[in-house]
Amino acid sequence: MALPSEKIDRLTVLHGAIVVTMDGDRNVYACGGLAMRGDRIIAVGEDQAILADFASGADDIVDLSGRLIIPGLINTHVHTSQQLGRGIADDVDLLTWLHKRIWPYESSMTDSDSFLSTLLCGIELIRSGVTCFAEAGGQHVPAMARAVELLGIRACLTRSTMDSGEGLPSSWATETTDSCLTAQEELYKSLNGSAGGRIRVWFGLRQIMNATDALLLRTKEAADKYNTGIHMHVSEIPYENEYVIKTRGVENGTVTHLDRIGVLGENLLAAHSVWINEGEVKMMAKSGVKVSHCPASAMRMLGFCPVQEMLEQGVCVSIGTDGAPSNNRMSMVDEMYLASLINKGKLAHTRGTTDPTALPAETVLEMATINGAKSVLWDNEIGSIEVHKKADFVVINPQTWSMVPLHDPISSLVYSMRSENIESVICDGVWIMRDRKILTIEEATILKTAAQAAQELIHRAGIQLPERMKVTK
Amino acid sequence: MALPSEKIDRLTVLHGAIVVTMDGDRNVYACGGLAMRGDRIIAVGEDQAILADFASGADDIVDLSGRLIIPGLINTHVHTSQQLGRGIADDVDLLTWLHKRIWPYESSMTDSDSFLSTLLCGIELIRSGVTCFAEAGGQHVPAMARAVELLGIRACLTRSTMDSGEGLPSSWATETTDSCLTAQEELYKSLNGSAGGRIRVWFGLRQIMNATDALLLRTKEAADKYNTGIHMHVSEIPYENEYVIKTRGVENGTVTHLDRIGVLGENLLAAHSVWINEGEVKMMAKSGVKVSHCPASAMRMLGFCPVQEMLEQGVCVSIGTDGAPSNNRMSMVDEMYLASLINKGKLAHTRGTTDPTALPAETVLEMATINGAKSVLWDNEIGSIEVHKKADFVVINPQTWSMVPLHDPISSLVYSMRSENIESVICDGVWIMRDRKILTIEEATILKTAAQAAQELIHRAGIQLPERMKVTK
Repeated sequence: MALPSEKIDRLTVLHGAIVVTMDGDRNVYACGGLAMRGDRIIAVGEDQAILADFASGADDIVDLSGRLIIPGLINTHVHTSQQLGRGIADDVDLLTWLHKRIWPYESSMTDSDSFLSTLLCGIELIRSGVTCFAEAGGQHVPAMARAVELLGIRACLTRSTMDSGEGLPSSWATETTDSCLTAQEELYKSLNGSAGGRIRVWFGLRQIMNATDALLLRTKEAADKYNTGIHMHVSEIPYENEYVIKTRGVENGTVTHLDRIGVLGENLLAAHSVWINEGEVKMMAKSGVKVSHCPASAMRMLGFCPVQEMLEQGVCVSIGTDGAPSNNRMSMVDEMYLASLINKGKLAHTRGTTDPTALPAETVLEMATINGAKSVLWDNEIGSIEVHKKADFVVINPQTWSMVPLHDPISSLVYSMRSENIESVICDGVWIMRDRKILTIEEATILKTAAQAAQELIHRAGIQLPERMKVTK
Repeated sequence: MALPSEKIDRLTVLHGAIVVTMDGDRNVYACGGLAMRGDRIIAVGEDQAILADFASGADDIVDLSGRLIIPGLINTHVHTSQQLGRGIADDVDLLTWLHKRIWPYESSMTDSDSFLSTLLCGIELIRSGVTCFAEAGGQHVPAMARAVELLGIRACLTRSTMDSGEGLPSSWATETTDSCLTAQEELYKSLNGSAGGRIRVWFGLRQIMNATDALLLRTKEAADKYNTGIHMHVSEIPYENEYVIKTRGVENGTVTHLDRIGVLGENLLAAHSVWINEGEVKMMAKSGVKVSHCPASAMRMLGFCPVQEMLEQGVCVSIGTDGAPSNNRMSMVDEMYLASLINKGKLAHTRGTTDPTALPAETVLEMATINGAKSVLWDNEIGSIEVHKKADFVVINPQTWSMVPLHDPISSLVYSMRSENIESVICDGVWIMRDRKILTIEEATILKTAAQAAQELIHRAGIQLPERMKVTK
């Protein structure tokens, strides 16, 4: 791949598309264009103006008539190392999910499995328009980083971190608070800023039931010192809050405890955040915590996140897919659709009717783009199509059976668009998918190798799935 | 199209696939095959046995290694004439939806619009594996029938029928109970059994607020006389039940009233059925009413249908997409995914946790196949892959980024499959889509023509959509 030279010099002009910038004024150019030089956007505006200013000096001029351009989507909570486990934990209760399926799976993974899993997941991310993701925490961060480097997208990588907790696989039970922090500092030093700046390293906290207060406090201290983020599962189930009330002596649960000890802050990305009361929403707003709402996995496993209440209080809420065994689709496009549906519908329980006006399309698009960028602490460079920002954007072809007719282009991006309408993906100024062909990796080879590795991994982990019907083999 | 001769004689053998029959025993052949002669399935079973019995005499032998075969999906509630209106009513309240968008749209449609709309919708149905649908009610049934004949799928067509109600468009307000019934009887006589038996004509009732008791009773009488079904929107919003309590003097609402006057019965397909209490679920079970659960539109507009409670009581619940302005995706594949997610999640409100075991994949597949067939009163011929049934089935290619790895094929059909994994669709023994190319109609031409007609229709209907962002034109 000739990334470096491409990035330094080439001037590319794209024009003729509806450009949805997601800038501060939410400018949309109905017949728009943009120019990028190397990895940066250098102009965005009306088609004719862009052509007049840049066509003569351009290395490439790409006519995107009939297309839409939006900022690259940002998936703020995804377990890339769980992709090989898609389908191993469907329709089972939470304890079976964790103890009989996910922990055996994750603790049996090799470095090579993790590499393949992130590549496989990355294919699905790219195909759903994702140019940046926040890893929710896995065991083999260097393997993930190698995959991200190849895929060509951005990532905030996080090590799954636990210094306590019951029933853990034996290989995980040996970690101390010290070893957790040391391992992460080493990862930070070796990988942060790698892949030409596309990779950042964050600190991880699996969840409060696997973290001593010492780990919580020292993680916050380390993240502040390195000026990076903390990715943590927060308030997933009522039991978690009950556990915190009992063990930490607070009145409400995880968020209240994190607030009291000073861990809530602008660099905390709180995934899920489902069982949060009104006072805790205010704590989150006041401290600048970011929330990753994961609609599909919330519906399956957790419950209804108070998204509207958070947005009303000024909390930055973004969108994540969670991992393949909890979703099972790793498509930000589907998650946008779901986010709107679920948050319109959930009011039926409390007020007797849904609110079809709740979480309108423009809000959902904000969550998936600029709020995503804020959530991963990268909004100075990504999340919108603006001059001087990185050239991370997506080209959509709406002229298909799934999006015709296009009466309302903005709402169609949320309610009608499918992953398959994503035609091209540009990240850091590089075409990583063009005309639905991924250019950075060999997709067919990865599918084949990953399928084989997945089968071997499940066998090695001793995971057995019951038959659902009367199968003749 | 050489349908007739193909249907009479040709013997086709398909083999090497995982065949999910959905027969009474829920047989699955891990390496299976089937033989079809003309429009009928004449054998299904293990690959080697099918080849041994039928290969020598076959006109075609199709190797489907690595594929899955399932019965054609049945969409039991879809407004095909609303497809040209996708995107005209997103994020608006119910009254705006109805009075400012849908009624102006529907009452401005021409016969030709309806024909194009059904063709456009049909493309999306076929691409999501649908071989049979129940029309929820439109104005131009002969136009729909012409489209269905071309598309090659099955349909139970219904005329949108109202003999009363407030605020209706002037062109609709002139109908009487008599004219409603006469028009439908004429449609029945001219179109029932047309398209080689693929088209059936049902009686329609838009909803109870647009139906006098005379219309309800005489519709039931007529449907019984012609041995056909009734398609009606039932208990969509709490206001509907309040209205029925007030105007009909019953204690509970639509279902209670329909039960009391004798309209509940085996040939009633009750769409949505969201605001139904425990007693009413029992009434539905006892009378053999069928329910079409429409997950996406329920989330947006209506609320949570008590699907599990109905299934537990023995009500036959199937799945529908509803119309494009309420969903906006017309994909039965997505609706299967949503049905499971929503019904797992909704318990979070009442018991504090979701139930990840609720509505497992095998149940959702039943709803979309054999329950769909029962709902459209056609299960003697469709809904499962069985000898003597019609050859209506779908070939799925799971070897893609969206379904790899395939640890649990049955659950992957519900949780991971995308419309785009549907590779081929066979209906009535005819390949209507093969290798993702629709063979019965010219897709590109229809997309173009429909987009143009949709724009003109919205203009004619005077529908104006507000801008969602700052658009420079």
